[in-house]
Amino acid sequence: MKLSSKFVPIILLIAVSNSYAGSKTVAPSHGINYPIGWQNWSTIAVSHRTDNNTSRVILGNNIAVEAARSGKTNPWPNGSILGKVVWKDTELKDWKAATVPDEFVHAEFMFKNSDKYKESYGWGWARWVGLEQKPFEKGMQVCISCHTPVENMDWVYTHSAKFPE
Amino acid sequence: MKLSSKFVPIILLIAVSNSYAGSKTVAPSHGINYPIGWQNWSTIAVSHRTDNNTSRVILGNNIAVEAARSGKTNPWPNGSILGKVVWKDTELKDWKAATVPDEFVHAEFMFKNSDKYKESYGWGWARWVGLEQKPFEKGMQVCISCHTPVENMDWVYTHSAKFPE
Repeated sequence: MKLSSKFVPIILLIAVSNSYAGSKTVAPSHGINYPIGWQNWSTIAVSHRTDNNTSRVILGNNIAVEAARSGKTNPWPNGSILGKVVWKDTELKDWKAATVPDEFVHAEFMFKNSDKYKESYGWGWARWVGLEQKPFEKGMQVCISCHTPVENMDWVYTHSAKFPE
Repeated sequence: MKLSSKFVPIILLIAVSNSYAGSKTVAPSHGINYPIGWQNWSTIAVSHRTDNNTSRVILGNNIAVEAARSGKTNPWPNGSILGKVVWKDTELKDWKAATVPDEFVHAEFMFKNSDKYKESYGWGWARWVGLEQKPFEKGMQVCISCHTPVENMDWVYTHSAKFPE
């Protein structure tokens, strides 16, 4: 098939925007496949926990980000994937009052599918640990227990940060 | 022109992934055009400032994120755009030890072009304030003064957060 030159830039753009995406093979966590490319997802919120000295960014796939930006998150739509990326804290050398990421701890995810994950409150719960992304396999109940205080927020702690339209 | 069905999903994907991108017209700041779509850029780092009680995410365009993930940021490559998105802090209701975004403050950007912005240390400095994204017009020197302590880091405070490959 011959393409008109009009379409070439679009195809090249896709290649460029994924050139830094994760490419290695990572084993499933709790039977859930690794969400390839999450490193490039858009931001839903950030958080800083002073109880365990960690900095976090909460990312989402397209369905989740669109829901977050339009405030339609209780419940989150099926197909949403939320990712929480966690780093140990450190003080920024050149601005002492700023706390910033140091060592990478883990990335943990919630996969919304109200049918498939009916037994775990509509979500698949998974985590990959360390820069080597070792699958967490201690069971979804570990995740669910901690999220029980927010069961009336569709089990999600994160409030979507406000962004200009 | 007739397209084979192979290309239809690719074109649709582009439409979906930009459907929550900023679309309104925003005036330039310091003569620099508004970087349309920054709300969907990927993450470079986060920070929490305890001196002015703000939470931040540092985002980048494709060139900047690729440089950040591969550690080639001193100097940052021409074409890099760094965005710092700032919110006032609040305590997460359901997890008191977590500090999270409240009111949106502003989004500020550094545009790298060592020729075009030779007079301002290789960067164009811009800021848009509030959810209405009102251009900041008090001069680049306001931005530069604050960044002088990191002139040997190509004028950038942010250390790129570690991400799994």
